[in-house]
Amino acid sequence: MEQFDNVSVVKKANVYFDGKCVSHNIVLADGTKKSVGVILPAKLTFNTGAPEIMEVLAGECRVTLSGETESRTYKGGESFKVPGNSAFDIEVVDTLHYVCHFG
Amino acid sequence: MEQFDNVSVVKKANVYFDGKCVSHNIVLADGTKKSVGVILPAKLTFNTGAPEIMEVLAGECRVTLSGETESRTYKGGESFKVPGNSAFDIEVVDTLHYVCHFG
Repeated sequence: MEQFDNVSVVKKANVYFDGKCVSHNIVLADGTKKSVGVILPAKLTFNTGAPEIMEVLAGECRVTLSGETESRTYKGGESFKVPGNSAFDIEVVDTLHYVCHFG
Repeated sequence: MEQFDNVSVVKKANVYFDGKCVSHNIVLADGTKKSVGVILPAKLTFNTGAPEIMEVLAGECRVTLSGETESRTYKGGESFKVPGNSAFDIEVVDTLHYVCHFG
């Protein structure tokens, strides 16, 4: 599925890390919130509030979850889970297109 | 209106100029296509296919339309029109959040 249908989109983007990460919030018909975004090549640390599933649509990244020592590589078609109130280090090797699923 | 309701959103973003511009395409219920995006501080030249109305939600830019010599400044709440098959130079002074209306 290349698009979300019947959703609301917040017009103003979320811009993090001087624009290395840009996302737009969307709300599905059932009230579920997600975001669609891009992370440019960079090494960044993200903190989570709610648990997240990061669905990689395209690109490539190496992710190290908080408390872990080894990174794992994720490419388009793959996903990774991040616990709530946690963090992860991400090294984007090739511009990452993603959907972030919360909760 | 801070959001578009009942729209489709293409999950994968458009990334231009090494990520200086990131946008997502949306389709309204009546089939109208728009995009919502961000331009980071930079001097860029955009080419248009269809005519565009750039609605600035937040930020600040100086725009020089193709064929004109003087720039005009646009801030949040303002818009500018660009003819089809044309171009414009834009200097983003403060990160620009925009909606692009086509046609």
